[in-house]
Amino acid sequence: MYNNLGDRKLSMLMDFYELTMANGYFANGMKDDIVYFDMFFRKNPDGAGFSIVAGLAQVIQYIKELKFTDDDIEYLRSKNLFKDEFLKYLKDFKFSGDIYAIPEGTPVFPGEPLLTVRAKTIDAQLIETMLLLTINHQSLIATKANRIVRAAKGRPIMEFGARRSQGYDGAIYGARAAYIGGVVGTATTLADEVFEVPALGTMAHSWVQMFESEYESFKVYAENYPDSCTLLIDTYNVIKSGIPNAIKVSKEVLEPMGKRLKGVRLDSGDIAYLSKKCRRMLDDADLKDCNIVASNSLDEFIITDLLDQGAKIDSFGVGERLITAKSEPVFGCVYKLVAVERDGEIIPKIKISENEEKITNPGYKKAWRLYDRDTNNPIADVITLSHETIDDSRPYTIFDEIHVWKKKRVTNFYVKNLQVPIFINGECVYESRNIHEIKKYCKNQVDNLWGEVKRFINPHSYYVDLSAELWNCKQNLINQYSFKDHK
Amino acid sequence: MYNNLGDRKLSMLMDFYELTMANGYFANGMKDDIVYFDMFFRKNPDGAGFSIVAGLAQVIQYIKELKFTDDDIEYLRSKNLFKDEFLKYLKDFKFSGDIYAIPEGTPVFPGEPLLTVRAKTIDAQLIETMLLLTINHQSLIATKANRIVRAAKGRPIMEFGARRSQGYDGAIYGARAAYIGGVVGTATTLADEVFEVPALGTMAHSWVQMFESEYESFKVYAENYPDSCTLLIDTYNVIKSGIPNAIKVSKEVLEPMGKRLKGVRLDSGDIAYLSKKCRRMLDDADLKDCNIVASNSLDEFIITDLLDQGAKIDSFGVGERLITAKSEPVFGCVYKLVAVERDGEIIPKIKISENEEKITNPGYKKAWRLYDRDTNNPIADVITLSHETIDDSRPYTIFDEIHVWKKKRVTNFYVKNLQVPIFINGECVYESRNIHEIKKYCKNQVDNLWGEVKRFINPHSYYVDLSAELWNCKQNLINQYSFKDHK
Repeated sequence: MYNNLGDRKLSMLMDFYELTMANGYFANGMKDDIVYFDMFFRKNPDGAGFSIVAGLAQVIQYIKELKFTDDDIEYLRSKNLFKDEFLKYLKDFKFSGDIYAIPEGTPVFPGEPLLTVRAKTIDAQLIETMLLLTINHQSLIATKANRIVRAAKGRPIMEFGARRSQGYDGAIYGARAAYIGGVVGTATTLADEVFEVPALGTMAHSWVQMFESEYESFKVYAENYPDSCTLLIDTYNVIKSGIPNAIKVSKEVLEPMGKRLKGVRLDSGDIAYLSKKCRRMLDDADLKDCNIVASNSLDEFIITDLLDQGAKIDSFGVGERLITAKSEPVFGCVYKLVAVERDGEIIPKIKISENEEKITNPGYKKAWRLYDRDTNNPIADVITLSHETIDDSRPYTIFDEIHVWKKKRVTNFYVKNLQVPIFINGECVYESRNIHEIKKYCKNQVDNLWGEVKRFINPHSYYVDLSAELWNCKQNLINQYSFKDHK
Repeated sequence: MYNNLGDRKLSMLMDFYELTMANGYFANGMKDDIVYFDMFFRKNPDGAGFSIVAGLAQVIQYIKELKFTDDDIEYLRSKNLFKDEFLKYLKDFKFSGDIYAIPEGTPVFPGEPLLTVRAKTIDAQLIETMLLLTINHQSLIATKANRIVRAAKGRPIMEFGARRSQGYDGAIYGARAAYIGGVVGTATTLADEVFEVPALGTMAHSWVQMFESEYESFKVYAENYPDSCTLLIDTYNVIKSGIPNAIKVSKEVLEPMGKRLKGVRLDSGDIAYLSKKCRRMLDDADLKDCNIVASNSLDEFIITDLLDQGAKIDSFGVGERLITAKSEPVFGCVYKLVAVERDGEIIPKIKISENEEKITNPGYKKAWRLYDRDTNNPIADVITLSHETIDDSRPYTIFDEIHVWKKKRVTNFYVKNLQVPIFINGECVYESRNIHEIKKYCKNQVDNLWGEVKRFINPHSYYVDLSAELWNCKQNLINQYSFKDHK
């Protein structure tokens, strides 16, 4: 069986600077220094109110399989940049740190640590690119898929985009992430074979063109697939030819076999107009149970608009705008140093920027989600230093980081830690849920979000606040840097 | 050594409908029918005047390795859709057709066949997704890279985007395509090891933060990399701290060793302002040879603007906007049936659409490029039926497909066939150039294009015309369909 990332050699998929830095830490006697890195993002794509995190299963597999082959070492040696001792160290390298992360399928918000690494300098640095790449890509697609799925208001969405995806993995892991985000299946066969994302497909225009007539092409298809017969009806003319031929095949081929025409697919033209006209023609032919599938450059906005106009569509196939997240094709997670250990003490670090939203939250931290006890709706997320706890037996006051006078006293809530341990001392301590459970968990979590956070345009900003202790720590560090002369 | 696609199992990376159609052709006795498919695109991304085609080397490798394993067959059997005889046929399947394609790195234009397949129905259908995915992805990135490279007017561009790419292959093959498009190197180590795209990298902000002071971090870096010392100067404050510390390290560490500070890198703030200020400070410190590298959300438009404002930047690092082609992240190649053979005769097929630009060019065709004999500038591309030739010893008249009165008599030209044979009867007959030659070829071809075609905004539309015979063939088919009753 296809072993996911297993037969890939991805250990060298790293920014070259990770190697020059690692070599530097090694040479400077810093290889065993313990550091803390957070992965977080600053903005939801598409101006959304939340995102869906995904990709953790692949992060786990990557970390487990991270090692450097003799070929890799020889390649690095040929660069004449790395010390022999360092290359020897790499040869036996195995990740030995701790990783905490928010499980896949969880709705997440800007500023909170999706993943935290506590590890030796070299360990933490070498995994930067693969962690970012994996989480950025799958979170991007899961988030986009979830938007499209919600726009369809219960109608199934199929993912159809492999041919327009950005590389093979764009299609394969994209289908995985889209499934987590809520699509019912994919056109990409390999994603079914590998990840159990159900694959489905019927015919292309070329099938129809390959026969002497559209009717003949439909007839042969129906004879071969009587139980799953969905016909593509727009090769010539939907109303004059496609629908009449589909109905004829239903009557002449399928119904005599005791079968039903499962669906017709529209892939061009004005979908709203055509679907209504098709619906009427199918209904008049006693084919009320025949689904109409639409699939032409769709996304959450076009689907919303089509349904708003009363389009009679039962399910959607979505291609390039989902698999590339075309409207905003980048998920912007960053990976930042937040603390170092000196003699066992955790020393918070901050990255200052002229751009205030680019200032990092320092320190080794925890992220908490506060839920309403009656409704299970998340009320707010709070980031604290790691030694803090939030006691949900008593009221808890949250406050805005910038406008600190904006306070809210939260009562009648329960609290959960968002991150869970994934690796401890290099050993994996987490078992990923299977993909169907992740998908179900995701839907459940999104269902529980306030509706206001879920608007496509101008959603409510969910609270992600800092504890008073973390806020003070951050202000102190900012003040230190503002007055420090950098030597 | 990493075998490119070799250790991947990508044969099942296909749209499921390719399998249902193939099974249908098989069951209907059509498996040995010969068909012709063209791959072409309809619009240059970003409203450009041309695109760069790339990905052929991976298409070749995929076709060579295309086969179905026992696991694949068992997976398909579990779907309860495919006939046993068909699965047996797949088990021994090997691509047996012909493929012609335009070599990688060639500037190409909407409407012309980048790749043509002549094969049995099943062979031609099963490769659809992988051909499209491969060429779409790499052409997208090569085209975007070429725009960014041209904007920099000779200053080197480094590709830095792995962490924001859409999947692992987005980074790996993206770096390959970007190199073909003209970047000098990549941050992605694996792309160097596998494809010889030179990898380069220095330090992240985390390196600087890991030390007690910025100066200390620069000093250690310079001691370790005296020959390639580029320092990241914006962790704290570029002007007050970054540049003074870089100069100090140059004077105290590098110059006593007889070395020079190679560069400083700006990754935030107003790059135009900061670069000018840095340039002056470096020059005043006798570091005129120290390069200034900039790298903050750049693309062709921002680079043009920065240079227009006199920014003192010697090279650029470009990340997410290149590796995802963020401004337009989809290259829209399609794969359309253009002819079938019946009793040895080639019968042209057309796909009609309400959208006139979606009507396909029918028939088995050739694409020609006419070059000016004196300047070597391409004058026009002409698509003909495959049996036609263009005689460059005599004047040739081209005409616009829609406004047929727009004619141009071309004289003093020579002509080349754009496509070359890649596979004949399933055997590869083409040897790919190495990547450095492809890159050089690409630059040379782009240099020869008229400047008017190369404008970023509102470029001149290069002529891609049909021969009179092809034009007539197309009009006849359109007229037939307009009057035909589809049965």
